[in-house]
Amino acid sequence: MGAAPYPFLESPTALAERIQRTWDERIPLTRHMGVRIVELDERGLRLAAPLAPNVNHMGTGFGGSLASVATLTGWGLTQVLTSHVEDVHVVVRESRLRYRATVTEDFETFCAFPAAEVIDAFRDQLAQKHRARIQLQVSLTAGGRSCLALDGDFAAFVGD
Amino acid sequence: MGAAPYPFLESPTALAERIQRTWDERIPLTRHMGVRIVELDERGLRLAAPLAPNVNHMGTGFGGSLASVATLTGWGLTQVLTSHVEDVHVVVRESRLRYRATVTEDFETFCAFPAAEVIDAFRDQLAQKHRARIQLQVSLTAGGRSCLALDGDFAAFVGD
Repeated sequence: MGAAPYPFLESPTALAERIQRTWDERIPLTRHMGVRIVELDERGLRLAAPLAPNVNHMGTGFGGSLASVATLTGWGLTQVLTSHVEDVHVVVRESRLRYRATVTEDFETFCAFPAAEVIDAFRDQLAQKHRARIQLQVSLTAGGRSCLALDGDFAAFVGD
Repeated sequence: MGAAPYPFLESPTALAERIQRTWDERIPLTRHMGVRIVELDERGLRLAAPLAPNVNHMGTGFGGSLASVATLTGWGLTQVLTSHVEDVHVVVRESRLRYRATVTEDFETFCAFPAAEVIDAFRDQLAQKHRARIQLQVSLTAGGRSCLALDGDFAAFVGD
């Protein structure tokens, strides 16, 4: 099975707090959207956001906000996966979003950790090549209903 | 060639102002991102946004902001295309985003009108079925460089 996929588990709470602090202090849009990390454990990363700052002119979820929070979720999980690496940067390379239902209340997103062998391969490549990609799926739900699915391709690289 | 594809052209300035006002007054995120319509003519719709409110923790364009502004551009063009229809709603159904380069300055997006026959088919279907879809491409550039491409599937429907 390779190395433990979740090195952060020594302190997931501290890691989640550090990521949340970075978002709050340095990414104005996340603060404005009211996005917060509500869960980080061995299953994955869960975010939540209130509807009010993320509405469109109809009073339902603005597609741009939903896309943004879903993208941030995959990005956040990739940050978690690379949190043991110094001077690492994470970017989204490509994503496909399918909007399934109207968001009419506060919403959540969830990105599960991939299988351990996928994580191992990603980390090995990052260690050897100083850059690596990983594919992640994010689901956005509101009131228990699936409203948006994101398939994303995230990249990490070390240094400039 | 069918009907004139751009009924708004009797007053593109007034239409652009109306759309901008709706965004400013009723979509909090667009105001926060500083998105503004800079051009609406027979070629298409061009938006601009400043980098400052849209940065990530590295000081470059936040993927969520870029996705949001690009989505809004296709959505805006679909609003233009349906501006002659009463009680019409526009939503994004699906999108594919390819992030090509880091955004390091203020950025623009552009969505061209599709061919006249595509517009005619979209409008005919909307008139007959009260719902229709259209595929649009959006490009996001910064300093003349292509940074993000969006292929989106937008839907319009009349009534509830």
